[in-house]
Amino acid sequence: MRNVRILVAYDGSAFHGWQRQDGFGTVQEALEEALRGLLSEPVTVHGAGRTDSGVHALGQVAHFHVDTRLADDRLWHALNAHLPAGVSVRRLETCADDFHAQFGARGKRYGYVVRTHRHPPPFGNPYAHWTRDPLDLARMRRAAGVFVGEHDFLALANTGSPRKTSVRRISSIHIVARRERLAFVIQGSGFLYRMARVISGTLLEVGRKKLDVDDVAEILASRDRKEAGPTAPPEGLYLLSVLYPEPAFTSRPRGPRGVPGAFQY
Amino acid sequence: MRNVRILVAYDGSAFHGWQRQDGFGTVQEALEEALRGLLSEPVTVHGAGRTDSGVHALGQVAHFHVDTRLADDRLWHALNAHLPAGVSVRRLETCADDFHAQFGARGKRYGYVVRTHRHPPPFGNPYAHWTRDPLDLARMRRAAGVFVGEHDFLALANTGSPRKTSVRRISSIHIVARRERLAFVIQGSGFLYRMARVISGTLLEVGRKKLDVDDVAEILASRDRKEAGPTAPPEGLYLLSVLYPEPAFTSRPRGPRGVPGAFQY
Repeated sequence: MRNVRILVAYDGSAFHGWQRQDGFGTVQEALEEALRGLLSEPVTVHGAGRTDSGVHALGQVAHFHVDTRLADDRLWHALNAHLPAGVSVRRLETCADDFHAQFGARGKRYGYVVRTHRHPPPFGNPYAHWTRDPLDLARMRRAAGVFVGEHDFLALANTGSPRKTSVRRISSIHIVARRERLAFVIQGSGFLYRMARVISGTLLEVGRKKLDVDDVAEILASRDRKEAGPTAPPEGLYLLSVLYPEPAFTSRPRGPRGVPGAFQY
Repeated sequence: MRNVRILVAYDGSAFHGWQRQDGFGTVQEALEEALRGLLSEPVTVHGAGRTDSGVHALGQVAHFHVDTRLADDRLWHALNAHLPAGVSVRRLETCADDFHAQFGARGKRYGYVVRTHRHPPPFGNPYAHWTRDPLDLARMRRAAGVFVGEHDFLALANTGSPRKTSVRRISSIHIVARRERLAFVIQGSGFLYRMARVISGTLLEVGRKKLDVDDVAEILASRDRKEAGPTAPPEGLYLLSVLYPEPAFTSRPRGPRGVPGAFQY
């Protein structure tokens, strides 16, 4: 059996999230069905983490064990040829037997894309969150700095599967802005349930001046979800990359054109 | 009462088509509800033509009668402020009392956008039709030429509301191609039900070499829908503009950024 890892991009609006739920059309199911069609055997695909319905990925990582003599390049093309629109494998490579997409990961990078057009944007709404409210960039940048470092993020997460600890390390939050579009790029050691979206929703409230920059440290200290801003909607969120101790994919991702297009909105 | 005309862009994937059907979320309903919220009176919005669910518009035209003292610019901003994401008014102007968006129209221009990426495109599938098949551009251009002129297009339309005649004049079909993306830009005096999509579906079959260029004249002459190619799916189609004897909007459309973005896919 070969252990194979893949770099996957998908449109969250085309699927009911990552994790298999029979009859729902998830990304995991699309990949497993494509592999089954190709290899005529059931294959389990292990992702680095789940994403909610509506949440996109440019760099999800997954691994699976297969028994095939197809070379990596052939397997890559054949797998894409069996996939439906909305999900695409950007890279595929045989990896060490002990590589595990989830347990081997040391961090993740998310992007949260916001549009601030004054008029309702007719196109691209599945690919970015839109708010009519003017956002104060300087305030949001100061608030973002408060999140950076090791903190107990219990106030910035929704209730999900229980974890041993709610302490996580955010290594950076960059806010990229251009015209009527901005993105929060958040990198951290790990993320609690919906943490990237609650951080984004809280930064937006600071940008709207509904929260003060000073409030952010108090929110963190409170460990109380009710103190933070709302969970920002899923369509703005992209899993940009999963980080490993050694680079999981050594060369620049090849793959379908059109992937960076999602960030143009 | 003032007669007001508007230029409207919308995302077909966000609505159940143009025409009001109570409880379904159509573009006409969104505009009428926004005007009702703004003016506190019921307003009927007359579009230049219906579009099916999934079909987009960059330049739909509509008119309505209102009794308000708001200047055009104020009314335009206020209307957009009441609209949901997915539909946007690009221009608004008070027009002659006898202007009628539908009965005054002398033609329409549609764009049909196709992507031909070898791998499934992860993003933008609501905004373009995707086919894995290689398409022969020169063949499609020759076939497009056969449609130009005045013809009976009965074979190139689906059964819809009965019309006095199925003769229409197509003034031009341009095929714009760049990398893995192409668009059929079809201008004509009028279009039968789904005619733009059946023409597009037939051109695609020629591009795939499933139909010959010579077949196209025979399809037209047959007046038999079964001879033509399949109806191309709605997500590729854009109503680009509605043509009037006098330009309906005299200056370049202002309005939200992001409108041309739809054509980037």
